[in-house]
Parts: sequence; C-alpha cells; structure tokens
Amino acid sequence: MSELSDKPSPSEQLESINQALNSGMFVHVRRQLQQMRPGDVAWLLEASPTPSRKVFWQLIDPDEYGAILEELSEEVRDGIIRLMDADKLASALEDMESDDLADVLRDLPEQLLNQVLTQMDEQDRLRAKQALSYPENTAGSMMNTEFISLRADISIEVVLRYLRLHHELPEGTDTLYVVDKNNRLLGDISLARLLVQDPNTLVADAMDTQVEAIPLLMTDTEAANLFERHDWLSAPVVDQNYQLLGRITIDDVVDIIREDGEHTMMGMANMDDDEDTFAPVTTSAKRRSIWLTVNLGTALLAASVSNMFEDTLSQLATLAVLMTIVPSMGGIAGNQTLALVIRGMAVGHIGDSNARWLLTKEALVGLINGLLWALMVAVVVAFWKGSWQIGIVLGLAMFINLSVAGIAGAAIPMIMRKLNIDPALAGSMALNTITDIIGLLSFLGLATLILIN
Amino acid sequence: MSELSDKPSPSEQLESINQALNSGMFVHVRRQLQQMRPGDVAWLLEASPTPSRKVFWQLIDPDEYGAILEELSEEVRDGIIRLMDADKLASALEDMESDDLADVLRDLPEQLLNQVLTQMDEQDRLRAKQALSYPENTAGSMMNTEFISLRADISIEVVLRYLRLHHELPEGTDTLYVVDKNNRLLGDISLARLLVQDPNTLVADAMDTQVEAIPLLMTDTEAANLFERHDWLSAPVVDQNYQLLGRITIDDVVDIIREDGEHTMMGMANMDDDEDTFAPVTTSAKRRSIWLTVNLGTALLAASVSNMFEDTLSQLATLAVLMTIVPSMGGIAGNQTLALVIRGMAVGHIGDSNARWLLTKEALVGLINGLLWALMVAVVVAFWKGSWQIGIVLGLAMFINLSVAGIAGAAIPMIMRKLNIDPALAGSMALNTITDIIGLLSFLGLATLILIN
Repeated sequence: MSELSDKPSPSEQLESINQALNSGMFVHVRRQLQQMRPGDVAWLLEASPTPSRKVFWQLIDPDEYGAILEELSEEVRDGIIRLMDADKLASALEDMESDDLADVLRDLPEQLLNQVLTQMDEQDRLRAKQALSYPENTAGSMMNTEFISLRADISIEVVLRYLRLHHELPEGTDTLYVVDKNNRLLGDISLARLLVQDPNTLVADAMDTQVEAIPLLMTDTEAANLFERHDWLSAPVVDQNYQLLGRITIDDVVDIIREDGEHTMMGMANMDDDEDTFAPVTTSAKRRSIWLTVNLGTALLAASVSNMFEDTLSQLATLAVLMTIVPSMGGIAGNQTLALVIRGMAVGHIGDSNARWLLTKEALVGLINGLLWALMVAVVVAFWKGSWQIGIVLGLAMFINLSVAGIAGAAIPMIMRKLNIDPALAGSMALNTITDIIGLLSFLGLATLILIN
Repeated sequence: MSELSDKPSPSEQLESINQALNSGMFVHVRRQLQQMRPGDVAWLLEASPTPSRKVFWQLIDPDEYGAILEELSEEVRDGIIRLMDADKLASALEDMESDDLADVLRDLPEQLLNQVLTQMDEQDRLRAKQALSYPENTAGSMMNTEFISLRADISIEVVLRYLRLHHELPEGTDTLYVVDKNNRLLGDISLARLLVQDPNTLVADAMDTQVEAIPLLMTDTEAANLFERHDWLSAPVVDQNYQLLGRITIDDVVDIIREDGEHTMMGMANMDDDEDTFAPVTTSAKRRSIWLTVNLGTALLAASVSNMFEDTLSQLATLAVLMTIVPSMGGIAGNQTLALVIRGMAVGHIGDSNARWLLTKEALVGLINGLLWALMVAVVVAFWKGSWQIGIVLGLAMFINLSVAGIAGAAIPMIMRKLNIDPALAGSMALNTITDIIGLLSFLGLATLILIN
C-alpha cells in the first residue's frame, strides 16, 4: 500500500522497466505497466527514446490509452497518436475531460480529425466541437464543461441527497456553483463549506457571493496568475453575460505554469520549448538550426564591425587578443537584466507605472557595475600588457558597454512586448547583438583614436 | 460581485493605486487596499519599488498582515518584516499555516526570532518549533499540520455529524485521512467521495487504501513532480513508521514549481533567482557582481588563448576579424543542448538508463549541425574574404567547435549533478568557457598551421 514499503522510487522504476525492455522481457514489462498509474506511464513514455516508446505503447492496455494521453506532453502525445488508427483513437478520447479532448483534437491533421469525429458518438462529437470552438490559450480552451450547478432556493439537505444520486462527482470537483434560471452565476459553495452547514440552511444563505469568475477569453497565463495569487483549486468560467460555461481546475493551471516557465527558460537559450528531449537526431538538428542561422547573421554582423578596424588590428595585434573581453562582459550583464525583466513581466509585476522606475534602476546598475569593471579590467590589462593606454581604452569601452547593456536589457523586453514580440524568444539574441556591436565599436574605435596615429 | 462587471483588471488596479499613492491620496489608497484580497495586496507590494512598499505597508490594516505575509515572495517578505517590531510580527504569525510560519521564522535573524517566539502563546510556539525542526526544502518543511483524520470503524453518517461540529475545515481541505490507533495511515477519503456515499457505509469500506504518502524527507521538488504527475490536490506526509504527520497542499506545490522554474531561468542567465525585481540599485549591483567576476576570469582566459597566437594575428588581421564567429556559434549550440538537458533533469526524465542515449544523440546533433554550418560559413567567408583557405580553416574550426558544444552541453549538467553542483547556476558559464576556448584554439591554431608560414 505505501510508497515507502513496497513501491520503488520513480527513477528506480524507470531503470528497472527499461532494463526489462532492453532484455526483451515483454511479459514482465506489460505486468509492470499494468501496475503503474496513467501519470507514471505518461512520464515513463516521455523519459524514453522514440523506439522504446513504440514498444511500450504496444504493451499498454488500450483501456488506459485515454488516461495516459491526457497526461502526455504535446510533442510526445502527437508522436504516439501517429501510431494509432482513427477508431482506437476515438474510443480513447471518449471519457477525456473536455479541455484535454480539445488539446488532442486541435493537434490532429485535418483528415484524421474528421475520421475521429465521425467515429465518436453524437454526445462526444458535440462536446468536442464545442471545446474546439474556443481560441487556443484562453480560459475557454482550458476549462472543463463537467461541473455541478445548483439553485439558490434549495436546502443543503436537498443538495446532499442530490449529490448521493451520483456514482461519483466530476473529476477535481471541490466547489459547486449556484446559478439562476438563466444559468447566470450567483455564487459558489465549496464542498468543505457544504459539509459544515446545518442541513436546513438554504444554499442562498450558505453560498459565497464574492466568487471571482474567469472571463471566457482571458489568456491562460493570466488565469494561472490569478489561481496562484488566490490559492484557488478551481474557478468558474463565464461569458460576457456572466453565464456559467465551465470551470478551470488547478491541475491544468499547474501545467500552464510549468509550460510557461519552460518556454521562457528554453526561449532564452534559443530553444524551441516543445522540442521533445528524446526526439530523433534529425528532428532536433532541424529545430535548432533556425536560431543558429540567426546567430550566424549576427556573428557576421559583429565581424563586419571589427572588419572596419582591420588596419588598426594589423597595426596592434594585442587589440585582437583583448577585443573579446568587453562584448563578453556586456552580454552577461545585459542578460542578467533581461532575465529579471522577463520574470517580472511573466507574473505581471511590470506595468506602465513602474516601467520607467525599473529602466532607470537597471541603467544605474549598469553604470555602477560599468565603473567597477572598467577600473578592474583597466588595471589588470595595464599590468598584463604593460601599457596604461590599452588599459584605459579597455576600461572606457567596458564602462560604455555595461551601461548600454543595462539599458538594453531592460528596454528590449519592454519594447518587444509593446510590439507583441515574445521577449523570451527574441530578447537574448537581440541583446547580444547590441552588446557585441557596441563592445567592439567602443573598444576598437577608442583604440584607433587613442592608440593609433 | 463579478470581476467582469465592477472589478478592474489587476494591471489597471496596479496603475490606479500607484497614481493615487504618487499623488498622496492616502485615504483613497487605504480604502482600495481594504477592498483587495491578501493575494492581490502581496502582488501589489511585489510590483512596487521599495519606498512605495513602506508607505503601502503603513496603510494596510494590521489584521491583514499575516495573510499578506503568507503570500509574499521571500525577498520582499524579509524586507517588509524589517519594518515590523517583534510583537506586531508575533500577532501577525498567529493564524498562519504551519508551513508558511516555518518559512517566515526560518529567515528571521536569531535575536528577532527569539523575541517573536517569546511573544507567541504557548500553542503557537510549540507549532513553530515543530515546524522549524524539519530540514528546509523537504516535504516536512512544506506540510501543514492542520488536517482532519478519522478512524476506519465509524460510519459516514458519524463523519458528517462530526464535520458539522466544525465552524470551518482546515484551509484547503479536500481529503480526510483514515488512521489506526497508532496514527498510522490506513487510507483516505476525498470530500467528493464522502458526499456520494450512503451514510450507513463504514469509513473502512468507503476509503481509498491505494493512497500514496510522501516521506517526510523527500525533497520539495520531487514531491511537486509527484503532485504534477498524479494531479493531486493534497497528499499526506508520513514518517518512516508510516505515521501521519501532516499534509502538503497544491497551493504550496504551485509555489515550488514557479520557484524552481524561475531558479533555472535566472540561473542560466547568471542571476540570483531571489533577487527582488524592485530592489535598491546598490543591492542589485552587488548581487550581480559575483557572476560578472567569474565571467571576467573566463574572458581573460579566452584572451590568453588568443594571446598565444599574437604573431599569427599580427601577420593576418583578417583572422582577428573572423575569430569571434566560431566561439559565438559554439556558445549558442551548446546552450541549446544545455537547456534541453537541464529541463529533462528538472522533471526527472534523465536517469542512468537514458543518459548515454541522450549524450550520443546530442553529440550527433552537434556533428550534423557542425557539418552544415561549417559548409555554410566556409562558403560565405571564402567569398567575403576572397580566400578559400580562410573559408576552409573557419569551416573546420566551426565543425570541431559545434561537435564539442553538443557533447559538452549534454555532459556538463550530467557531471555537475553527480558532483551535486547545480547545473542551472554553473552550467552555462562552464559551457561558454569551453566553447570559447575550443573555438579560438581550433580557429587560430588551424590558421597558424595552414595559412602562416
């Protein structure tokens, strides 16, 4: 019964089942898979190379397909679905929550989608079409339409009897919603609150009317921030007439927070955040090449800057040795600011009222660090190269570049947001281009002015 | 009542209240603050520069202090607490959940901590000391000790009557735990399940015995991954004797997932992830300088590499112009792999069984991209500089560096994990050092061999 006593840790499980698979003990693997929860199987599939995934999928009990697909990340799920034919898929989707259902269907190729829809029974087909009708990445696309709603004029006693008519409540039910005859949301009552009420109380007197509802078209990220800020377990979704359409549950919010976090992290490393860790080599190589192309462009741009100073460099090779230092420091300092601002934007901390304050602050940080490192590097290099002039040139360039880096690191994401460009994706590349070019320009430029004649 | 009708959006709220503050309309600000939920006030404080925070805090109703402190991020909370005296703080902490209580107390300076503890009433002091006794970042440190446990031999009817004796259930209660007379966990029953049971059923027959319990010393990150994988709302925490000690609730898990994500993102940008976005300039400047120092070291290291080729550079200044391209491409390619592997580790996808597979895959990706970009850059530069030899040298260096980048990007985090070094913090710096040095060595080295004589 307990994880402590007889359950192996997830990673141990991963090791043992992979060994079993590699040594061809399929019967053993199938038995292990049957004992695992859908979430664990999904996790196992995500942690396995594509070939092993195929074998695992064959060994999984088809009744489990739906529950497992719900838990899989988009990339991996799409790969798995390609292994299934329309009717298997249709039956797998039957008892899926409406939001997960929409997720899966949205990624299907047109033709397969239609096949699957025709395979579904009438009710599921309507549910699917309804779910697909909401734009992606909105509250509508992440809500479940399975929930329990009550009228205000009945007693708790009646509610309790009504609930007992159910074999089980919709997954993740922690709150019941109270609506009027036009299905407009009046309030809600959590199960925890329901259970401490005197059975004779009316729902109207027991319900919480301060309920905050999520508008149908709010972005999923905004909705997730609200959940996080108010420690909600679920929240009702309403249309502009305040009619109750569905509810968002915390498990989907957790996925959004995880995905948004990964998106930012991977984006700043110039990675496509839905790249599957265990994708085939060619797929990965292709996915990465976009940003490598962009970077080659910016690198050649930087080279063309130093190219303007080829004479200077030929006269004083020491400059070539030192010219990488300033751009490198600028890149680091700028990316520090960039990361700070992008994080602040993600949780909605940065608005018009404090943007200027933040910009000024980061500029000042750049100035201070600029002075500090200018001094330090000037001294170091003056001693290393035995020339105070070179030290001074390097110091000045460092000061200029770190100051620029501070301003650029804060300004770039703010400007990009205004232009609806995702700073997490394009920010660091743009920043590094600026700090490279300013770094080279200032160092080689000043060197030409001061050292060459 | 509804967010749609009369509630402004969070960002609108942020704007308006800041304008009110700046124009000194304190009465108005106080009224607005009274209408806001603790979570919103916390969010407002986090989104405000330090000076405004002080003013806001003065305007907040002290009865709200506890609820707001619970919601604040560590950095901001510590700043606020410095504004409070011991007895105010003690009374604010009184009705805090035990895990949040521990969080706050853990960060207090020794002396203040003792003052606060003596100010607390006996019961709270015991609760606090208990909470503080669990190591940080473990299940123990994030669990609440407020929960409801039942015996197996009573009927649901009795449970319902027992619950009605409460004015309200402990915050975030979604499940009741069933224990034996030694407080060992036998199973659990969710409120949703409780409500669909026939009142005459025994708890023993209604409970779920498949409950998975979290060991007291599991890391908070592992626990969060389990929550995410199984869509839990809460989970019981047990000691090695399977005795029930507390429960972890999803709201704390959400914080862990958010913090871990930010830690990785900020870490890869060489930022201290608990730096407060609106911290004073000097604080920020100091925090950033650590990594800038490290980077200066690595930049000088790279410079000392090119320094070995000063003669070559003085003979052929074009090399100086081109020598930044190969390190730059290597850095990008390596960081792509690094980000992928770090993400995989974060969700526990990467174990001994698939590490070699992944390493090989990333090495191959590096080889393929290496070939591709070697060819491309060789052609471009051959035309630009009108010299096939230079093109070939650059191409060869590019191939070498991208291959190394692929291997290093995958190997570095794996090695660091074995050495218990956090790859998110030190990974990218180590990687860039390698790709810079190999890039310069291979390009300038080959150039010396092939072009100089």
